[in-house]
Formats: sequence, structure tokens, C-alpha cells
Amino acid sequence: MLINCVAYQEGKKLSDIPVADISDYLEKPETFVWVALRDPDASELAEAKLEFNLHELAVEDAARGHQRPKIEEYGDSLFAVIQTVELVEGEAELHVGEVDVFVGPNYVLSSRRNTTQGFLGVRARAEREPHLLAQGSAFVLYALMDAVVDRYFPVADKLEAELETIESNIFTQGAQRANIKRLYELKARVLTLRHAVMPLMEAVGRLYGGRVPALCLNTEDYFRDIHDHLVRIATTLDTIRDTISTAIQVNLSMVAIDESEVNKRLAAWAAIFAVFTAFAGVWGMNFKFMPELEWKWGYPMAVACMVVVCLYMHRRFKKSGWL
Amino acid sequence: MLINCVAYQEGKKLSDIPVADISDYLEKPETFVWVALRDPDASELAEAKLEFNLHELAVEDAARGHQRPKIEEYGDSLFAVIQTVELVEGEAELHVGEVDVFVGPNYVLSSRRNTTQGFLGVRARAEREPHLLAQGSAFVLYALMDAVVDRYFPVADKLEAELETIESNIFTQGAQRANIKRLYELKARVLTLRHAVMPLMEAVGRLYGGRVPALCLNTEDYFRDIHDHLVRIATTLDTIRDTISTAIQVNLSMVAIDESEVNKRLAAWAAIFAVFTAFAGVWGMNFKFMPELEWKWGYPMAVACMVVVCLYMHRRFKKSGWL
Amino acid sequence: MLINCVAYQEGKKLSDIPVADISDYLEKPETFVWVALRDPDASELAEAKLEFNLHELAVEDAARGHQRPKIEEYGDSLFAVIQTVELVEGEAELHVGEVDVFVGPNYVLSSRRNTTQGFLGVRARAEREPHLLAQGSAFVLYALMDAVVDRYFPVADKLEAELETIESNIFTQGAQRANIKRLYELKARVLTLRHAVMPLMEAVGRLYGGRVPALCLNTEDYFRDIHDHLVRIATTLDTIRDTISTAIQVNLSMVAIDESEVNKRLAAWAAIFAVFTAFAGVWGMNFKFMPELEWKWGYPMAVACMVVVCLYMHRRFKKSGWL
Amino acid sequence: MLINCVAYQEGKKLSDIPVADISDYLEKPETFVWVALRDPDASELAEAKLEFNLHELAVEDAARGHQRPKIEEYGDSLFAVIQTVELVEGEAELHVGEVDVFVGPNYVLSSRRNTTQGFLGVRARAEREPHLLAQGSAFVLYALMDAVVDRYFPVADKLEAELETIESNIFTQGAQRANIKRLYELKARVLTLRHAVMPLMEAVGRLYGGRVPALCLNTEDYFRDIHDHLVRIATTLDTIRDTISTAIQVNLSMVAIDESEVNKRLAAWAAIFAVFTAFAGVWGMNFKFMPELEWKWGYPMAVACMVVVCLYMHRRFKKSGWL
Amino acid sequence: MLINCVAYQEGKKLSDIPVADISDYLEKPETFVWVALRDPDASELAEAKLEFNLHELAVEDAARGHQRPKIEEYGDSLFAVIQTVELVEGEAELHVGEVDVFVGPNYVLSSRRNTTQGFLGVRARAEREPHLLAQGSAFVLYALMDAVVDRYFPVADKLEAELETIESNIFTQGAQRANIKRLYELKARVLTLRHAVMPLMEAVGRLYGGRVPALCLNTEDYFRDIHDHLVRIATTLDTIRDTISTAIQVNLSMVAIDESEVNKRLAAWAAIFAVFTAFAGVWGMNFKFMPELEWKWGYPMAVACMVVVCLYMHRRFKKSGWL
Repeated sequence: MLINCVAYQEGKKLSDIPVADISDYLEKPETFVWVALRDPDASELAEAKLEFNLHELAVEDAARGHQRPKIEEYGDSLFAVIQTVELVEGEAELHVGEVDVFVGPNYVLSSRRNTTQGFLGVRARAEREPHLLAQGSAFVLYALMDAVVDRYFPVADKLEAELETIESNIFTQGAQRANIKRLYELKARVLTLRHAVMPLMEAVGRLYGGRVPALCLNTEDYFRDIHDHLVRIATTLDTIRDTISTAIQVNLSMVAIDESEVNKRLAAWAAIFAVFTAFAGVWGMNFKFMPELEWKWGYPMAVACMVVVCLYMHRRFKKSGWL
Repeated sequence: MLINCVAYQEGKKLSDIPVADISDYLEKPETFVWVALRDPDASELAEAKLEFNLHELAVEDAARGHQRPKIEEYGDSLFAVIQTVELVEGEAELHVGEVDVFVGPNYVLSSRRNTTQGFLGVRARAEREPHLLAQGSAFVLYALMDAVVDRYFPVADKLEAELETIESNIFTQGAQRANIKRLYELKARVLTLRHAVMPLMEAVGRLYGGRVPALCLNTEDYFRDIHDHLVRIATTLDTIRDTISTAIQVNLSMVAIDESEVNKRLAAWAAIFAVFTAFAGVWGMNFKFMPELEWKWGYPMAVACMVVVCLYMHRRFKKSGWL
Repeated sequence: MLINCVAYQEGKKLSDIPVADISDYLEKPETFVWVALRDPDASELAEAKLEFNLHELAVEDAARGHQRPKIEEYGDSLFAVIQTVELVEGEAELHVGEVDVFVGPNYVLSSRRNTTQGFLGVRARAEREPHLLAQGSAFVLYALMDAVVDRYFPVADKLEAELETIESNIFTQGAQRANIKRLYELKARVLTLRHAVMPLMEAVGRLYGGRVPALCLNTEDYFRDIHDHLVRIATTLDTIRDTISTAIQVNLSMVAIDESEVNKRLAAWAAIFAVFTAFAGVWGMNFKFMPELEWKWGYPMAVACMVVVCLYMHRRFKKSGWL
Repeated sequence: MLINCVAYQEGKKLSDIPVADISDYLEKPETFVWVALRDPDASELAEAKLEFNLHELAVEDAARGHQRPKIEEYGDSLFAVIQTVELVEGEAELHVGEVDVFVGPNYVLSSRRNTTQGFLGVRARAEREPHLLAQGSAFVLYALMDAVVDRYFPVADKLEAELETIESNIFTQGAQRANIKRLYELKARVLTLRHAVMPLMEAVGRLYGGRVPALCLNTEDYFRDIHDHLVRIATTLDTIRDTISTAIQVNLSMVAIDESEVNKRLAAWAAIFAVFTAFAGVWGMNFKFMPELEWKWGYPMAVACMVVVCLYMHRRFKKSGWL
Repeated sequence: MLINCVAYQEGKKLSDIPVADISDYLEKPETFVWVALRDPDASELAEAKLEFNLHELAVEDAARGHQRPKIEEYGDSLFAVIQTVELVEGEAELHVGEVDVFVGPNYVLSSRRNTTQGFLGVRARAEREPHLLAQGSAFVLYALMDAVVDRYFPVADKLEAELETIESNIFTQGAQRANIKRLYELKARVLTLRHAVMPLMEAVGRLYGGRVPALCLNTEDYFRDIHDHLVRIATTLDTIRDTISTAIQVNLSMVAIDESEVNKRLAAWAAIFAVFTAFAGVWGMNFKFMPELEWKWGYPMAVACMVVVCLYMHRRFKKSGWL
């Protein structure tokens, strides 16, 4: 579905233009065309391919979707794949979408899939600041990327918050089953976000500093800024990952410690009752000559004796921490 | 076994030719020979060696088989070893075959072993599009590789699906023995696919970008595309591997948690019966003067008392989650 | 909040100057302006941006805070983000603050946030030694960094001491629950300090040796010294991390070993009482013809017999280490 | 001990020569001397040092033995240390020997220690193919290395077979003690082979491709072939290592699962007997008025009742998988 | 404390000289001064700094001590920090000392701290071989390093021997508590030695091969030799570390296996006694009509019956390996 198709000159909007005229505008000097598609079908991509003269392999990737994030050079143009990552209320898994951006010297074609995130805000901001837009297509690429990457932060924060919630329960008895499940699910979500962040970070890292595509020569500082954001998210994710794996170990230790305490208690009570029962067993024997059985106060004495011994044992176990 | 031996000129098929004439055709300008062998025996390889003037070490590797994936330069020609990986219905292990490709400026010799995958489709498609075939032998190498790599995807998907099945059982009580076994077997299969993917990825990564063999200068974008596919599969495999190792830990935790719950239940029931038995033991003692034994309602009262105490304990254990 | 705004000439203090005059002083030859802010608000940063002609992205970072440590080149100036890490009495978590330093050929602007650490000492020392200050703005950057990094050492030492305390308890029975908790919290603190140290180490590593920003050409040895300090701290932290993860494993082993010993004791006592009770059960049977029941010394003999058997078992268990 | 000392010209054997004449032959053009020592003593090495003018440090290494595999350049000559690894029938540990090779432009001196592997076959094959031997000393180095590396394969295969044997037992109940022991010993053997393979792989990797010692310029393809073999073995070893560590985890899980099943059975039987004993205890009480005790069929009914309850419990436990 | 201060010319000792004259000797051509300090105080270092014109930062490091091993270039001179590691009889921890070496074109100043190792032997050997000493200050640095590194070997051997002792106990029942403690302590010692070895290895690796400090141009082979020694020790340490972490896992498995066997035994004996007690309980019931109680041989038959059943169970448990 076509969302926008606009021509700009020196940073200012000329007009909305029909897709079929794109190739004409591209030939005009100082003119710049910015097209946005959403869940495009094969015919739309085919038309765009013709108008912009896009590389076959890049169009194939955009048509198929489910690419990993990457930035590829085709001659003097770039093809960028970026993943959007969204939290969906009430769902455990993160929602992953995709934005494909074709960037040439005087055009930008973005195509997004499976995502509710729109980029109208990006275009509006860019149109409000013609001096920035006048920097050309690489700046638009930066602006789109920045919009996507900025939306990674709340996701990462959410994951961090989830980890903190789990951590606050990790030393709680009886919460281990829930903890381990949440840790496992959290790890899966961290991996999902990582898969969006890491390859993009690596790719953006090649847009500044060393040998840089000609397109991006004026915008190196901006891409370094995005790279820096991605490194921050990556660091956060690595910390979460590292902490999850420690937390899983700790959780196992807590299970073992809890169990060992239950075992001790079990052992203590078993001992107490075993003693009690042993006494009762003795006085339940049928020997003829058991003088204490004949005593008037034999029974209360016996019970008292059993209770005293058991209380004594109870106290000793209590002291040694078994009960 | 010889499957095909065809000469092409400017991307178009000239004719099937006998193996013995290959060296003659190789001397003609603009001509290109494409030979396909299957499970070749020593004599076929020896003949091919002579006709194409192949390097001894490469031919030795092709003869022996069981090589790791690699792409080696011998002068101006390339020797590529690619592994095919197939799912076999009803077998736990993946089936690994091998395709050896000798690529010279004007020839391609492919030899496959232990694999049911044929490449007739590749040849048919190439013959239908002479402008692609006209790009020469590196394009054929690309087409063969692409065919093999495309068949890795369903295998990787299958492994991912298997992992998801296991994950859906991981928090199920009593499934741990089966889970651990399936995780272990899955890991072995992941390793098998990884061994096909990783070395090839590394090798293909040297066919574009930096210093590239002369043969591949026009087809860099295509090899980058294959590299990109391999990176995607490798990422998937790494995620599976990472998840498997977490799942094994989680599975162990679940065993421990389940056991600790069984232990608590055991402890609770043991306590209840120990109390019951202790009471019975007391009233089973043979003291002469035990007034309650003489009471008319002594027995029902005793049993009632025992039951009440046990029910009370049962309820407390229930509350504290032990039962 | 503005703390200082001073102009220097040839290493000597000229005078405190108003912020609005900075741009005038920057035009004078051999003059150098050093400004210190604390928790600056937007307007202060905006004014500083104008006077020093700072880069928009750097100012944005400084305004937002919560950056990771980094050193970025903007043209011929540097923007450094350093994290301060402080121990707070009575709190488990480390307190992380931030110092942002803008360094140009003839100015230094430092802005600190969320930290009680001041840098008056750095300025005082620098003013006492004009020959050092005369080396220019990179030396001031060094001096600020050195002050921050020097304060990492007591934090690292504290973490090491905490680890040693835990280690001294690790083979103590019954301390495992506390140990695991302390290890977990210690790990979190180590990660916090690491996040301050590692990126800074990497960044400082680019201020000497290879291609160095023009500003830092005379102070390479000093930055190498800071790098060396950071490497030392990083090594300490890695050792702590490594040891923590071993300690967690060892702790789990100790839980298991303790539990297995408890189990053995439980088993031994259970066996002893089971035997005792079995004997009592036998003599509590109601068979008519049980000669020993009629004996005069039957009862004491029975009890003696039971005690002897149990003592014998007790001794055997003692010997084999179960009790 | 001197094994051979032969001079060659243009790939053909001239004659066996005395060690003392070596330096004379080395001065002749197109002549090549190949000496083989075995467990040489100090004087033999000293003589060789003089004749070949070897570097002091290299000779020291050869005299001491127990070096790690390496290839060092000394001026225009090479010093290679290779480890032989042999299976010894009936011994758990692998037998590690050492081959030191000094290679100059027109000589090869090999010295082997602690190994039963000889290299007469290598010499015989080389002498049969003068055109190969004519390629000079680097080819001899290749041939020696190739002989050693080829003997790594059966060792690696043996280790793989051992792993497969263990794997086939890993889900067998009661085999865990043996498994863990075998896994531990296998790991030690894998490490031994790895220590022979990895440093050699790294060293051989510098004999082709990039900057190569002058000696090896014509034999790069051959060293790449050895490198390829070593990579294959290294991959195998890494897979074994990885699998061992998973197997150890899995084994621990199996122990825990088995134990938890034993615990459940124990709990079930304990419950059944506790119920049985509780009933018996009730009817063993001495209350005067217990009507059922007076019934004619009281006893069989009681026993029947006890048995029925226990059978019912048995069946329920069976159903829920505890028995 | 000053130990030696000697001037050499062309490798031969001229005379012991007072520290104050050093700067004079340094100006003489072909002269070389070698000074050795031990636990120097501030004034000694200050004097040395003046005489040799040492860099402030290097002197600060030497004054403070507790540096990590490193080799730093200051202009045309080097500053090396090396750690000595010693076994102290009867102490668990390794003793770490420090040797700081300042090396200029015509001087060497060594300063050792906290170590009983002296370097008189190094000086004596150097003076005996003037042709080596004539190679200049880098050779002295090599000789000092070599002396320190040579003393790492017995320490590494000791750690290996300790590991072997532990390994021989690892499958012994009941040794797990001691094993885990020794493994933990061994790991700490391995880390200590590693911290001495790894940074030094990295630093020495930059004294040969690539871009080498001018001072070391003639002694590259010697430093490569030291590097090789350090790599050997590092490999040993990595193997020990790897083995320790496997051994900790194996030890935990052994605890679990032992415990599971104890559990089985416990279960078996509990079952046997439960059956015994159940029988006794039945015949201890007070039913009026229990014919077997009236039989003359009832009692022996009952006991026989109980014993037979228990023996039968014992045998079955024995067979199935539970007892």
C-alpha cells in the first residue's frame, strides 16, 4: 500500500507525485523523492524497482521479508533492513516487524511490514526543518533509523523491569517454579531484541569512522549517535542475559537449599516420632513381669516421660536450626 | 557416474559432448563446459583431472570425500566443497552429503556424493536464462551453492520447531526425562547443520568485499546474498544452541523443584501417619491403670481424636502448600 | 549550577569571568577557559553551547544524562562521558553519577550529575602547577579522568573484600543461603563498576599509541597511565566475576554435600529406630505361646537386647561416617 | 641415535654420508642433506649444531624436549616442533612424543623423541618420487608433518567412538557413575590431542596465504592441505568437547531424574505401609469396648480391609506413575 | 636498598660506582651501567630518577608497587614490570612479588619488591659471558625476565601435581567435601599465576615480530623464546582451569550419585523394616478370634515367616543393586 510519494527540492516539499512519475523527478537536479510503502505487494515493488532502478537481489529480500537487520551497498545506493520490536499488551512474546529502506543519492524508499509503527512523525519533523532535509537521503535514513531505535529503549526498559521483579522474588521460598519460568521467557524476549539490535549495530558501525559509503559522508556524526544508542541497548541486554544465567543458577541453589531445609525438618520430626513410638512399643510388649505396668501412676509417668524426651529433642533440633 | 557434460557458448547450450573432448572445447573462445558427476569412481575423476588439468590435492579431496566445507584457490581456479544436509523421514540424525565443485575460467565440474539432491533444476533454470549463464562459471558456482543453501532453511526450521515442541513441555511435570533426551538429540543435529554452515559462511565471506578471486569479480553481490543467507541460518542455530543449554539448566531446575515438592508431600504424609501411629501406640500400651481404656466410648473417642488431629494437620499442610 | 568559570593564560589563572564573555576569551591567543557545571539545567547548557560552539548531539547527550562512558571526536574537539561510582554507606547498590567533559583546543567544560564528588581538588592542584596546566586542555581532561578513576580503586577493593568475606564462609555449614544472596548482590555491583570501567578503558585506549586525536598528542603517556589503571581494575573485576561464578557452583556443591550428609544421618537414625521398633513389635504380638514373655527377667533382657543391638548399629554407623 | 644421513642431488640420492662431512656437502650447489636422529643425546645435537650452523635457542629446545608445537623462523631457516600422539593398547592416556625438524634451504634435520613412529616410509616415498623431492627442503618438512598429522585421524576417530559408546549409555539407568568417569577421562584425552593440534594449526596457517617464509614459497598449497586437515581434526575435537560438557550436564540431570523417581517410589511404599501399620495400630489398642474385636470374622475382615486399602493405594500410585 | 651499581664497557665490568656518578658514566661512549635495588625507598628512587632521567609516571609506578605486569615505552627507553611468583612452604596462597626494570640505551635499573628471589646469578652469568653482555641493555632485560619466567615453571608444575592428586580422589566416595575445597583453592592459585603470566606474555609478544622498540632489535629471538615459555605456561594454566571447572561439575555429579545410592539403600531398608513391623502389627491386634495366635508353634512360625519375607526382599534389593 502506498502511503506517501513526495518530491522535495532543497529540503522543501514540491508536491505529492504519482509513482509513475518518479523516474522523471529523479532526473531533475537538486530534487529528492521520498516514498513510503506499507506491506507492499509484488506489483508495487516491481513498479518501484523500475522507477528507482533497484537491484534485483535487494527487491527480492524486501519482497520476502523476514530478513536479518543489515545495510548493503549496491553501487552508489544502500539497502537497509531494520527490525521494529514492539511490546504487545498481554502477550509474552515481542512483536517483530521490518522496515526496508532503499537509499539512493536522490531518493529514499521505505517499506514497512508487520508493524503498527508509522513514520509520519519522521516525515513531519523533517519537513519542518528543511535545512536538515537538505542534507539529503542519508539524513532521511538516519531519521528513520533513529525513530526505530528510539522505540527499542522502552522495550529494553520493560525487560529490565521484569528482571528486577524476578530478582525481588528470587530469595523467596516457594517462588522458584514461577521464577524459573519467567526467567526462561524473559531470556527468549531478550534474544529477540538482541537479534534486532546486534546486526544493526554492526552494520551502522560501518557508516562512520573508517571507509564510509559516499552517501553517508556528511552524516557520520549522526550514525555514530545511533551506533552509540545501539551499544547502550546491547550493553543492557548483555547485562540482563548475564544476570538471567546467574539467576537461573541461584534459583537452582535456592531450590536445593530449601529442599535441604525441608529434609532436615523431616528428619527432625521423624526422629521425634520414632522415639515416641519406640517408647510406646516398649510398654506395649506383652512380657509378664514388667513392674512399671502395674504402678498406679505408671501410665501418666510413661506419657510424661515420652513427652519430656520429645520436647527435649524438639528443643535441641530447634537450637541446631533443623526445626 | 556421469550425469551431464554440456558445452555452452555465450550462455546458450551448444551440445552434449563426450568427456574426452572437453579439453578441445576448453580451448575454443567464449566456450564454457559444465560437467556433473555423481558418486564418481577413481577413473572418472582421473579422466576429469586430465581434461580440466585439475590440481592433484583438490582431486584427492574430491576422491576421498568427507571434507569440511571450504573454498580453495588453485591458481586461477577454485575448488569448493559444500555439504548437503537433509532430513530423512523417521531418522533422528541428519543426512550429510557432499558436493565438490571445480571452477575454472571456462568450466564447472560438480561432483556430488551421498545425497539425493540433484541439480538438474539449477541447470534447467540457468539454460532458460542465457544472460545469467553468460556471466560465466562463477555464476554457476553461485547457482549451485544457492540451491544447496536454500535447502538448509527447511532443516533449520524443523530444528526450531522441534525446540518449540520441547519448550512447550519444559514446565510439564514428569516430562523431564523425555525433554532432556530430545534436547540432547536436538543439540547433536544442530551441531551437524552448523558444521555445514559455519565453514561455508566463512569461505563465502571471502568471495566479496575485500580481495576477491578474479573469477568472482562480477558476481560479488550474488555471493554476498548467499553469505547473508548463511548468516541468517547461523544466527538461528546459535539461538537454538543457546536456548538448548538454558533449557537443559531449566529442566534440571524443574526436576529439583518437582522433587522438592514430592519431598514435602512425603514429609507431610509421613508426619500425619506418624502422629496417628503414635496415638495408637500410646493406647496400645499395657499399663494396668489407663482409665480411658475402660470408658464405654473410649474407643470411638480415641479414633475420633486421632482422625481430628490428622485432619487438622492435613489442613495445615494444605495451607502451607506442602500437600 | 555554575561552579567555576575561569580563564588561564600560559597556565596561570587570569580571573573568574562571566559565562557570557567566554567566546571573547576563546579568541585571545594562548588563553584557556575552564568551566565547571553541576547538574546543569537546559538553559545553562544552551548558553554553554553558544559560547563554546558545541555540537548539538553532544549537548543533547549531556542534557539527557545516563550515557555510557565514551570519548567522541567532534571536529577538533572531544566529548567525554565518564561515570563516577561511589559506595554509599548502608546501601547495597553502588551509586553511579556522570561527568561530561567537552574539550576543545582552548577550553574545557565539565558538567557533573548525580555525584557528590567534586573536582575542586583537581583545579587547585592544576593551578599550583602552571607548567602542567600549560600543556593545555588535554591535560585537564587527564586530570579529571584521573580523579574519577582513582576513586574506582577503593570501590574495587571493597568488592574484593566482600568476596573474601564470603569466601571465608563458603565451606561453613548452614551459611549457604546467606552466601548465595551475597554472591548474587556482589555480582550486580561488579557489573555496575564494570559498566563504568570497560567502555572508558576502550575509549582511553584510543587516546595513545595509534591514530590519536590532535588534542592529545602531547599527553599520550598520561592517558596510557589511566588506561593502565583501568586495565588493573578490569582485571580485578574479571577475577571477582570468575570467582563468583565458581563460588556459586561450589556453594551449590556444598548444599548438596551437606544434604547428603543429613540424609545419611537420617537414614542411620531411621534404621536404628526401625530395628528397635521391630523388636518391640515382635514382643508385642499376642501369640499364646511365647515362652520369653513368661520369664522373670524377660523384660529387662528384651530391653537390654534392643539397646545392645541399637548401640552396635550406632557404632557401626559412626565408624562408616554416617553419624 | 643417528638413523640416516643422506645427501641428495636434484631429488636423487647421492649416498649415505658421515655426519662430519655434512658441512662440506652443504656447500655444493643443488645438493640437499637429510638427517634423521632419534632420542639424540647432547653430543649428537652439538655436532649437528656445528655442521648445520643451527641457532642456539632452537638446539636448546630440541635438547630439552617437551616443547609445545610451533614453527619458528631463524634467519632463512625454520625450526618446527610437532607432537606425535599415539594410542597405547590398554592405557587410558594418550602417548605424546615429539618431532623436532630443522629446515634450511638445503638441509632437513629431524629428531624424534618418545615415539615409536618412524619416518622411514616418508623417506622411501620421497626417494621414489624425485620430482617431488627436487622441490627441496620445505617439501620434506611437508611430508614429515603430513605423516604425523595423518596419524592424528585414527586417534580422533577413537575418541569419537568412545564418545558414541558413552552416549549410547547416557539415558541408561544406573550407568551414571561409569559415564561420568568415562566422560572425564575422555575430556583429558581430547585436551591432550588438542594441545598437539591447535598450536600446530596456528603455526601452519602462517606457511601459506599471507607473508610466507621464503623456504615455503613453492609449497604453499601443500601446507594449506595440512592446515585443512588440522582444522578438520580441531573441529572434531571441539564438537567432542562441546558434547562432553553437555553430556556431563545431561548425566547430572539423569541422576536427579532417577533419584526423583526413586524418591517417589519410596514415598509411595512408605505411604502404603504407613496406612497398613496405622490400621494394625488401631486394632492393637487396648480399649475395653471395641466391638469389632469380638466379632467372629473380625480378624479376617480387618486383614481384608487393610489389604484392600493398600491395593487401592498401590493402584492409584501406579496410575499416577509413582510406582 | 642498593644492591649493586656497576659500570661495564664492551661487556666487561669496569668497576662498582657510586650512584651519584651514574650520569657521568652514561655520557661515556660504549659504557653501560647496571644498577640493582631492593625494596627501594622514596629517596633512592628520586636519586635514580635524577641520574637516569626517568619518566615521572614510571617512577611513580615503581614507587607504589602492586602494578600489573607490563612493558611500556617512554621515548627510547622501556619500563617493564614483572611479577615474581613463589611457593611458600606450608601456605596455601602463592607469594607475589614484583620486579621493575628501567631499560635505556646504555643502562638497566632493576628494583625488586616483596620477593626473596635475587638476581645475583643473572649478573654473574652475564659477567662470565661478555659477548652476550656486549649486546647491551635489552639482553640484560631478557636475562632478568628469563630468570623470573624460569621460576614460574616449578610453580605451574606444583599446581598440576595438586590437580592430579585431586583427580585421583574425585571418584572416591566421601572425599567430595575435601575435593571441592581443594579445587576452589587451586583455582585461586591458578588465577594468581595467570595474572603474572598473561599480561607479561602479551607485552613480550610486542618485543619481536612486528614493530619492535629500537632497543630490542637485536634480541628479538630471545624475547620470542621467553614468549614461547610464557605461552607454554599459559597453556598449562588454561588446561588446569578448564579441568578444574569440569572437575567441580563432576564432583557435584558424584555427590548426587552417591546420595542417590544412599537414598536407594535407605528406601530398601525402610521397606524391609516396614514389612517386618507390619506383620508384627497384624499379630499384635487384639481380635478375639485369631486362630494362629492359639497355635503352639504360632510364634516361631510367625517370626520365621517375617524373617523369610525380609530375607527375600533383601535378596531382591541386592540383585537390583539397591543394597
